[in-house]
Amino acid sequence: MGRGDKATVADVARAAGVSPATVSRVLHHPELVNGETLERVRRSISDLDYSSVSFDGIGASGTPLVVISIPWLDNPFYGEIVRGARVAAQIHGAQILISWGNPEDPSLDDFCQMLRSCGAQGIITCGPLSLEALGQIDDTVPVVQCCEFNDRSSVPYVSIDDFSAARTATEHLLSCGCRRLAFVGGPDVYKYTRERRRGFLSMVGEQMIEVPDRWVLQIPNNSFGLAYSAVCHMLESEERPDGVFACSDTFASAVIRSARKSSLEVPGDLMVVGFDNTDTAVMTTPTITTINQPRYNMGFSACNLLFERIEGSSEATSMTLETELIVRESTTSKKELS
Amino acid sequence: MGRGDKATVADVARAAGVSPATVSRVLHHPELVNGETLERVRRSISDLDYSSVSFDGIGASGTPLVVISIPWLDNPFYGEIVRGARVAAQIHGAQILISWGNPEDPSLDDFCQMLRSCGAQGIITCGPLSLEALGQIDDTVPVVQCCEFNDRSSVPYVSIDDFSAARTATEHLLSCGCRRLAFVGGPDVYKYTRERRRGFLSMVGEQMIEVPDRWVLQIPNNSFGLAYSAVCHMLESEERPDGVFACSDTFASAVIRSARKSSLEVPGDLMVVGFDNTDTAVMTTPTITTINQPRYNMGFSACNLLFERIEGSSEATSMTLETELIVRESTTSKKELS
Repeated sequence: MGRGDKATVADVARAAGVSPATVSRVLHHPELVNGETLERVRRSISDLDYSSVSFDGIGASGTPLVVISIPWLDNPFYGEIVRGARVAAQIHGAQILISWGNPEDPSLDDFCQMLRSCGAQGIITCGPLSLEALGQIDDTVPVVQCCEFNDRSSVPYVSIDDFSAARTATEHLLSCGCRRLAFVGGPDVYKYTRERRRGFLSMVGEQMIEVPDRWVLQIPNNSFGLAYSAVCHMLESEERPDGVFACSDTFASAVIRSARKSSLEVPGDLMVVGFDNTDTAVMTTPTITTINQPRYNMGFSACNLLFERIEGSSEATSMTLETELIVRESTTSKKELS
Repeated sequence: MGRGDKATVADVARAAGVSPATVSRVLHHPELVNGETLERVRRSISDLDYSSVSFDGIGASGTPLVVISIPWLDNPFYGEIVRGARVAAQIHGAQILISWGNPEDPSLDDFCQMLRSCGAQGIITCGPLSLEALGQIDDTVPVVQCCEFNDRSSVPYVSIDDFSAARTATEHLLSCGCRRLAFVGGPDVYKYTRERRRGFLSMVGEQMIEVPDRWVLQIPNNSFGLAYSAVCHMLESEERPDGVFACSDTFASAVIRSARKSSLEVPGDLMVVGFDNTDTAVMTTPTITTINQPRYNMGFSACNLLFERIEGSSEATSMTLETELIVRESTTSKKELS
């Protein structure tokens, strides 16, 4: 992996005849380990001179550091992700710092150099990355992908099944009686946009419903203002959708405001389903039917997976967590309305 | 300052007979400096062995790092602050990492150790800190306070005049005809809550209006859910306010949802003014009259001030930036309503 042949937690575990998880507990929660095992593991750590080689840049008194890279700080989506990751880091006796933006912008070399010079032990990446970029980061420190992931890479991930969640959201709009459906997505570089659009189109396709191209919107980022402008434009025409699947609660709130500008009632004239189940979904009038992502759990699991990798486990496997539909005021059965 | 007697940019500037700003330009934007000056400054840098002593932990090929500490990641307020700081960091050729939480939790020693071991050159703190904590952080790396500041400390800050902004917001409610006024604030440990409440009470006091204690709410954090519960409770009574000054747009959106639950019209039965001018203020129905804070500029200015301190300027002085009232749908003149 290009990180050199240094002693890892796995090496220590082998030498002491225990699991890597036990070594981790000895390092971070010795109070949980029985005396004899504690002694044996500490001897192996000492024999292999483990801590001085593996915790580069962190002195004996220092706290290990992990980094979480998020593409947008002002998207309320990431708060709970980082909160979960932070709790997992604390359990492992580590601190966490957040990097905001695309690691490749302006330079991936600078980013990797920063990871090295700040002594990061590992990184959780939440944005889309090329196979090459992921490889270069993983050659620097262990990586786990969270939310967005590149499925051509062997780097493990924690995410959701966007395709099937989008089918659930679309099926709900159909079951409420909507027949003229529109889609509001983010940039195509994001797996979440590509997969949710694919799920949306597969579900409407099964019902033999055609969706005009101009009703499939692509917003350059998770911006309320840009989505508001694009949806207002879509609603100006005579021919209008009666249901919108929006890829985020921010986009769904923009649909609600746009409908109001066009004097359309939500849900009477237009129904909306969002995604994420952030606070935004309960701040608006009407409140937003949405897909809940287990964000706290995603961040928590990704960080635990990262520590498995840091500690040398070869068994760190990807996880796909469950989503669920939460029905609120922005959708209602057409029968109930009339 | 306890950072030892290392060569600073000020030392280099003195030796080269130029200003610290010129030394900064030589370090980060040599293309902006004329040849003769460039040569002289580089010679002083070399003579004083400047870069190797001052850029601890960053190799010759590395990019300097600054940290920004924010109390709440899921508060949309901080996105623009960090965006501004990030741009200023880029101009100085530096990268920025975000620390989320209170530096004193769980341990200020660990936090300072982390700043050292990750090679941070300086830190912008956005949350409330004791004089002692600020002193200890400033003994580790140069600090600038942003938004929240401890005015007993000599550490420079970039902030706003919360007292007078709150008076403006309250005066607006009064000018709209409100006479029964309530206040929704955050925790008292925050200067913004204390100063905005003081401004609110001073303005209503001048109008001889009494505010019952139970109409002065204190919410434990900037949580929509907690504010919603507290405001619902306040609106249950017979005797109700007709105007609310809320310390954030998040709180104001909770007031709007609570009013709806009590079948009160906003602005007809109850007017609301928020604070911050985040996207939340335009997502809600009605949209929220609010106080704009120049958040991007605050982050940008704080980071520039930090680089002045990093580069040894003794002239880094605090800044108080302007706010402004933005009138939207949640307030209207009573005359217009009737």
